[in-house]
Amino acid sequence: MNNFEFKNPTKIIFGKDTIEKLKDEIPANANVLFLYGGGSIKENGIYDQVKAALANVDFTEFGGIPANPEYEILMDALKVIEAKNITYLLAVGGGSVIDGTKFLSAAAVYEGDTPWDILTKNIRTENGMPFGTVLTLPATGSEMNSGAVITRKETREKLAMGGPGLFPKFSILDPEVIKSIPKRQIANGLADAFTHVLEQYMTYSVDAKLQDRFAESILLTLVEIAPPMLKEEFDYKAASSFMWSCTMALNGLIQKGVPTDWAIHAMGHELTALYGIDHARTLAIITESHYKYNFEAKKEKLAQYGERVWNINEGSIDDKAYAAIEKTTAFFKSLGIDTKLSDYTNEYDGTAEEIAKRFTDRGWLGLGEHQSLSPKKVEKIVKMAY
Amino acid sequence: MNNFEFKNPTKIIFGKDTIEKLKDEIPANANVLFLYGGGSIKENGIYDQVKAALANVDFTEFGGIPANPEYEILMDALKVIEAKNITYLLAVGGGSVIDGTKFLSAAAVYEGDTPWDILTKNIRTENGMPFGTVLTLPATGSEMNSGAVITRKETREKLAMGGPGLFPKFSILDPEVIKSIPKRQIANGLADAFTHVLEQYMTYSVDAKLQDRFAESILLTLVEIAPPMLKEEFDYKAASSFMWSCTMALNGLIQKGVPTDWAIHAMGHELTALYGIDHARTLAIITESHYKYNFEAKKEKLAQYGERVWNINEGSIDDKAYAAIEKTTAFFKSLGIDTKLSDYTNEYDGTAEEIAKRFTDRGWLGLGEHQSLSPKKVEKIVKMAY
Repeated sequence: MNNFEFKNPTKIIFGKDTIEKLKDEIPANANVLFLYGGGSIKENGIYDQVKAALANVDFTEFGGIPANPEYEILMDALKVIEAKNITYLLAVGGGSVIDGTKFLSAAAVYEGDTPWDILTKNIRTENGMPFGTVLTLPATGSEMNSGAVITRKETREKLAMGGPGLFPKFSILDPEVIKSIPKRQIANGLADAFTHVLEQYMTYSVDAKLQDRFAESILLTLVEIAPPMLKEEFDYKAASSFMWSCTMALNGLIQKGVPTDWAIHAMGHELTALYGIDHARTLAIITESHYKYNFEAKKEKLAQYGERVWNINEGSIDDKAYAAIEKTTAFFKSLGIDTKLSDYTNEYDGTAEEIAKRFTDRGWLGLGEHQSLSPKKVEKIVKMAY
Repeated sequence: MNNFEFKNPTKIIFGKDTIEKLKDEIPANANVLFLYGGGSIKENGIYDQVKAALANVDFTEFGGIPANPEYEILMDALKVIEAKNITYLLAVGGGSVIDGTKFLSAAAVYEGDTPWDILTKNIRTENGMPFGTVLTLPATGSEMNSGAVITRKETREKLAMGGPGLFPKFSILDPEVIKSIPKRQIANGLADAFTHVLEQYMTYSVDAKLQDRFAESILLTLVEIAPPMLKEEFDYKAASSFMWSCTMALNGLIQKGVPTDWAIHAMGHELTALYGIDHARTLAIITESHYKYNFEAKKEKLAQYGERVWNINEGSIDDKAYAAIEKTTAFFKSLGIDTKLSDYTNEYDGTAEEIAKRFTDRGWLGLGEHQSLSPKKVEKIVKMAY
């Protein structure tokens, strides 16, 4: 096991009818900016629940944060924060709204020239403006971590940021909110959380036995609850396990003491930036070719995953590892998620070269757990995913 | 899954050569009380490492906190805190030193008549005196939770306390410290952590799939690393998994959203209070008879545990559950831990009645996940453990 540090101070409030509890979490004298997305919360009742809980608090609303939170729109929110002397942020939404709120938490206290620097210069936020979240779409784990990914349409870029000052003060996870989520987004959440775990697990062994078992626990749970989650009828028990699994998949715990990969995400982000493909689907596009290309480096762990998650007990290490990759692709397909770039766009020619060029331009010369995936190798992997 | 709240703000610093990092964690202007136990840290080098890290900090030493931290001795430490205007506590030790430090953290700010009230009146501490820990003996999880158990020899009592203000600010976990721990204490740590997990898992299903898998992950890891941990030669990799498993077994995570039992601990504490038997060994004494007595209520979960942890795949639910109990006893024995009270004392006559009477006197009329274990039933279970 590698040395590590771990601290996660976010307070989780989990369960049925918990949204009202936000009134106990926001300081009485706070001046709140209530941030949300495209307005679905007005249809499913969450907006009303939040407003009721905010009855005794000063607040301003800012709706319209899009999927893949967009820099220009967030800059409009930043103007509201300044104009209204906002002191506390409340994100009500999925990963996009929460990530956008983290950017605002950092930008509100940033003293440099332009908040875009936070993303391009990897500025870590030690103390952001405090914020809480009400999660409406389980998937990204953003409700219990200190990272965010922000998109800038103008430059077709998607960049990461973070820092210890960007953990939510609290996050409310009421599985009932899942009732009104379209099945397409449920499928995305399942694939997203599944791939989050894989990125922190499918590397090489450092004999971190508990971290491996925890990662496998989340994968096993996601596989088990996927069928009930995709059924028409709402299943509260499955929804609870889904919601908690998504959070645990990316709250920092399972990555401590082990090597991590994240190359699938790096490539996937570019597919979203270039084609607007749903984040989770870009991960499903890249996974198989990434694991096949890096087969030798990952095959021991792939075989362990095959045995423990997919019950593949026959054959050599290579056989098990290969079968495990096939099982993974089949799992994505069982969610109704296509796994080739050509399933999403006809104009994929040149994509691999463009992504490789971007990585070169950014100085990303060695991705993955061995820092060995050069832009040239990335080009090959993306091409295999056409 | 049941509703729950979870917050654990302790910063973990894990790995080789990390003790020196405590100098970055203690505030520069702190006036520290450095607390430790019987002095083994002076033989194994930890004392010197801590002193070196405290080179630029004002501190006072207080050694001699015994196993099962004793109220009268802690009251002496409290006088030092008052006399020296101590502002920060540093526990260097195992669960006993850390638990004692938590009591002091609470007692230092308590404004009632006598600090003993904190234990007898269940006073929860919202803000204690800040403290950090250097863990020298993995077992209790006290380094990453907010609970403590304190003993009072005078009355032969052992009582629990806690509160959100009693999380360590930081805990340093360097697996190298395990090198000098006697095998008897390693065995105790393995049994203690194993039983901690069982208390939070061996109840009835609320379909909390991830919590079940996480609990099983810790059990599987402990079973796997027990043999290398008991070998003469020090195995850093196994020690790392052991240390992290002990912490995760009782840092609050796996108990969230599920029913918990803790009756084994309630009975076990009395055996320590009455006979001075090592805490972990008292748990091993009670476990089998507790599970046999409550077989009908627990058999579904016992069977699941049998399948997933002990690979018992043949037979009925009852068969698997029964075999799982046998496997548990065999595991304790494989650690060199006897599992009957008569293995530890010849004067056990009347023990069951005495414990039942104590529970009655304290008003503990219904222990366990169903709050249905009356003192009469406790008496029967303890008798089965003779």
